[in-house]
Amino acid sequence: MFKLYYSPGSCALASHITLEEAGAAYTTERIDFKSNQQNSPEYLAVNPKGRVPALVTDRGILTETPAMLAFIAQSFPQAKLAPSDDPFAFAQAQAFNSYLCSTVHVAHAHKGRGPRWATEESSFADMKRKVPQTMAACFALIERDMLKGPWVMGETYTICDPYLFTIALWLEGDGVDLAALPKVADHRNRMSERPAVKKVLADEKA
Amino acid sequence: MFKLYYSPGSCALASHITLEEAGAAYTTERIDFKSNQQNSPEYLAVNPKGRVPALVTDRGILTETPAMLAFIAQSFPQAKLAPSDDPFAFAQAQAFNSYLCSTVHVAHAHKGRGPRWATEESSFADMKRKVPQTMAACFALIERDMLKGPWVMGETYTICDPYLFTIALWLEGDGVDLAALPKVADHRNRMSERPAVKKVLADEKA
Repeated sequence: MFKLYYSPGSCALASHITLEEAGAAYTTERIDFKSNQQNSPEYLAVNPKGRVPALVTDRGILTETPAMLAFIAQSFPQAKLAPSDDPFAFAQAQAFNSYLCSTVHVAHAHKGRGPRWATEESSFADMKRKVPQTMAACFALIERDMLKGPWVMGETYTICDPYLFTIALWLEGDGVDLAALPKVADHRNRMSERPAVKKVLADEKA
Repeated sequence: MFKLYYSPGSCALASHITLEEAGAAYTTERIDFKSNQQNSPEYLAVNPKGRVPALVTDRGILTETPAMLAFIAQSFPQAKLAPSDDPFAFAQAQAFNSYLCSTVHVAHAHKGRGPRWATEESSFADMKRKVPQTMAACFALIERDMLKGPWVMGETYTICDPYLFTIALWLEGDGVDLAALPKVADHRNRMSERPAVKKVLADEKA
């Protein structure tokens, strides 16, 4: 039995969908960002970074989306969510997810998380103004070079798909025009039709 | 035979050390950041992101340090550089490396790469001023909660060690006092004594 700490609208959605796709037994606990619950002593005891997601397992607590996604996939090999028996294919999937966490999510975070990296209001406003441009550039690269279609890695659905879907849900809010990203838009629509995705989105909204 | 594209002083050092530790057959090609070679048409054909590292393999090109490190480890299992047969332990190692790429390297990058996320000179200066604080906070967490010692994952050297070492080399330049980080300092010294690390550092300086 796993327990996932998440916040609605956050990148924890990728792990939530993957738990559901894997057929894992899990519970969830919502962390309320509006009341800064992620920095409460109780939650910092779970994840000292004060971020979501965090996954409680019977071996200990895991954080960081790319590591959690691979762990869920490898814990439920029958669900075939990652090519773990092929180190090169597995590395390609990990490279995609690493790009999402280290570059794309970071670009997005400059819209509302400026105080992580600067101090002045003028800097926060400047960072925020650039987000439509940086996110459009990241997704132009994904559209052109990374998303093989119909799924990220090609014919097979993997742990890259819920992570791309999660971040692609932020595009309109980040001021990026989906019309320039037909493959990304198609992927997002295809993801939205999956029963696991429908169930998880409904659970997070409840 | 692998080929590693790198730039001296960059995070590519982690992959360079890992190739050496693994006993891999590899060549290297230096990318000159001063002449913006990372954005030359020739290099963008290798890595459209215009970043190092990139690893040419007989299956294709890999990017993103956490993915490359795991791939090298899994390609040379006899070197025992990652706990690939234990999904939870492997996820812990991947989580550590994911934190380095998505949070710590990103904090560092705000010193000199402000134009990635903002437009105004005042914002770049503001970001730069905050780097000692953000890097100190990241490394305080590593020192307190993550670095088990003597190696990152405990008794066994893994792919987390060269990556931590690589980023820890930036600390003085980022204005962080190593005196507050005795475990990190000890780890850096221990890494410096490894023959593979000595060889790679000498090669990158040559």
